[in-house]
Amino acid sequence: MRFSSRVDVTDPNAISLAEARAKADGMALMKLNDSNPTRHGLAPAGIPNVYEANPRGPVAARRALADFLGRDGSGNRDGGPDVNGPVDPDRLYLLSSTSQAYSWLIKLLCDPGDVVLAPKPGYPLIESIARLEAVDVAEYQLLYDGSWMIDVARIEELLDEYGERARALVLINPNNPTGSYVHPDERERLVRLCAERQVAIIADEVFFDYALDPLPGRRRLAGEGGVLTFALDGFSKMLAAPHAKVGWIEVSGPDSDVAEAMRRLDVIADDFLPMSDLIADRIPELLDAAPAQTERVRERTRGNLDRLRRLLADDDLGITDVLHAEGGWNVLLRFPSAIDESELVLSLIDRWRATAQPGFFFDMTSNGYVAVSLLPEPAVFEDGVRRLLAAVAAALEA
Amino acid sequence: MRFSSRVDVTDPNAISLAEARAKADGMALMKLNDSNPTRHGLAPAGIPNVYEANPRGPVAARRALADFLGRDGSGNRDGGPDVNGPVDPDRLYLLSSTSQAYSWLIKLLCDPGDVVLAPKPGYPLIESIARLEAVDVAEYQLLYDGSWMIDVARIEELLDEYGERARALVLINPNNPTGSYVHPDERERLVRLCAERQVAIIADEVFFDYALDPLPGRRRLAGEGGVLTFALDGFSKMLAAPHAKVGWIEVSGPDSDVAEAMRRLDVIADDFLPMSDLIADRIPELLDAAPAQTERVRERTRGNLDRLRRLLADDDLGITDVLHAEGGWNVLLRFPSAIDESELVLSLIDRWRATAQPGFFFDMTSNGYVAVSLLPEPAVFEDGVRRLLAAVAAALEA
Ligand SMILES: Cc1ncc(COP(=O)(O)O)c(C=O)c1O
Ligand SMILES: Cc1ncc(COP(=O)(O)O)c(C=O)c1O
Repeated sequence: MRFSSRVDVTDPNAISLAEARAKADGMALMKLNDSNPTRHGLAPAGIPNVYEANPRGPVAARRALADFLGRDGSGNRDGGPDVNGPVDPDRLYLLSSTSQAYSWLIKLLCDPGDVVLAPKPGYPLIESIARLEAVDVAEYQLLYDGSWMIDVARIEELLDEYGERARALVLINPNNPTGSYVHPDERERLVRLCAERQVAIIADEVFFDYALDPLPGRRRLAGEGGVLTFALDGFSKMLAAPHAKVGWIEVSGPDSDVAEAMRRLDVIADDFLPMSDLIADRIPELLDAAPAQTERVRERTRGNLDRLRRLLADDDLGITDVLHAEGGWNVLLRFPSAIDESELVLSLIDRWRATAQPGFFFDMTSNGYVAVSLLPEPAVFEDGVRRLLAAVAAALEA
Repeated sequence: MRFSSRVDVTDPNAISLAEARAKADGMALMKLNDSNPTRHGLAPAGIPNVYEANPRGPVAARRALADFLGRDGSGNRDGGPDVNGPVDPDRLYLLSSTSQAYSWLIKLLCDPGDVVLAPKPGYPLIESIARLEAVDVAEYQLLYDGSWMIDVARIEELLDEYGERARALVLINPNNPTGSYVHPDERERLVRLCAERQVAIIADEVFFDYALDPLPGRRRLAGEGGVLTFALDGFSKMLAAPHAKVGWIEVSGPDSDVAEAMRRLDVIADDFLPMSDLIADRIPELLDAAPAQTERVRERTRGNLDRLRRLLADDDLGITDVLHAEGGWNVLLRFPSAIDESELVLSLIDRWRATAQPGFFFDMTSNGYVAVSLLPEPAVFEDGVRRLLAAVAAALEA
């Protein structure tokens, strides 16, 4: 696997080696240069009194998380047939958000001017974060024919086109706002392709547990062994707590790639050490709350999807459709493309005091879409959809 | 002021403008695309139930911090004559660490291959973080003649040499491990120079309150109006709580530069939104504890510096010196340069079961130094210094 030249992995100097040897021999060294105040009895009251400064995050929190992720069925926590194997806490990195994970992984893999492949339509933040790292995004299309699929052939072409510059394939499983999971056949082809080309996979699985549909064979990419894989998840969606700022990376793949990736990722993590002990301390308790939270939100999204379908079926015009979404928190609505989606939203704002995101925001390739969140309380949700349908009707009349 | 091309500041589209207009008119819009679960009654119990997702950090926490920073004497909280003016909470960005602040500011100011100037000897993490951003560091020397001074002429030469590529001057006030503050005359020349060359100042003031010496005219760079200035501080040192992961940036300078910098910094902050509400909620309480914590640590560092001086005066050999440190948590010890500093530390490990950081670690230009932390409990500290003096004596004999 190729890594960027941003990470300094020069060999440890004689002093670090001697320190490591002493440690291995069980010899405790007094550190005359230890400027961690918590090791000198100086931490303030009311917060943990020793800071271990572990680049991957506090061990106790990683153990609790690994336990949680490795539980039977946790890979598919709504009761599907797939189970995760055990998760090794040493292969987890705790950090503050999926955004931070993207940023670290792009630094790990890409020099300026290198390329990551990302889905279109897709999550717009990826392009913004890549640009902050001076890295380019090449978009690969998702195609819709009643369900969404990944254009694997196009990915292969892009890898040919960019050659050595292509360093990572972003898979969002399920994607936002298309709601499409990576299907088993796509996964198999993509893992093989990435292994051949020595391209790492970054799998954003924050919405994984929010299935809207039964989907046989749905599986997390986390733990994939066929190619170097970084799976991202966090409390943002799993716990409906974006404000907790808890995310993680799980590293898997061929052992030698994993070892080299983690050696380098440790350097990045060590420069930032982002996990606060004030948060880490609460991770076990928050994990306990996660299954009920996921269930609660899933009921909301599934209920609203039913509501949406009913509202669309009852709509006099009958011209607004919902694209088939397999999972996630958002769906795409399609209306006749004679209506300009941007103007539709502008009229929604002016006349119906509501707003929505038109498809171009997510790089839909043609006009005629808005994305709608399935999270609002049912009455609010219905009200919102009615305003949208009214705006569509008015746009058609005009 | 020049900014990087990493930040996308394309003009808002028609929909964002219409949304902003509605907001300005006091018209509440229903958001059909709102996927913040906390706005739909879905936040888990036990953590704040609404997430405001403010890029600069939660307003209440920033207000508390601005109050604290703007208090009389807070610019020089050990009772010196200088006071800060009021601090505007809107000019503060809350984030997780000084490291993160460096990373954001380098992204804001530097394209790949651009240059930041940083002190030597200095804080080694700056080079590592800059490299992660694909940015170069040009070191400027601090000179010692009984006290440390900044080689301003050399900075001027470096700015000439790098021209447009030079984007920021890092000032560490006081620096680690030299313990030297930016002196009033240096500050005046540097602010003028940076203003002329349109180079921003990044002022790392995490150790500011840890004066070891009276120093008339000592002042924070935070709030400097003469040139675009980003002052960094946080709980790591102020509260002796590196594990809390609370840091901030205070932006100041000419109004138009500040406005443009913040417009761009908002984009970066919005991509990461790093401040957890679990932490932000505790900021007021932690600020209350800060003055006593600073005082407690300052007593420790001052006490240990006295102890160190006594131990050196009592030392039979009388050949080990402490370089004059004006502030901070670390000091540099100098011994005869006939002793190789790296070998000294290796023998310290092998024979005295203690370790220290040799000067080369901080880019001292000549051999003969180790850095020692002033934080340990007095008995531990004395024991450590005695081991070091024994190692120096043994090295001289060999
Ligand atoms: C695909 C995807 N990944 C990640 C996130 C956000 O994750 P975080 O809050 O951890 O950065 C979102 C939020 O909408 C998302 O749509
Ligand atoms: C000069 C300097 N700045 C910043 C820091 C660390 O700050 P933070 O923990 O907020 O990244 C240190 C730590 O030693 C330091 O020496």
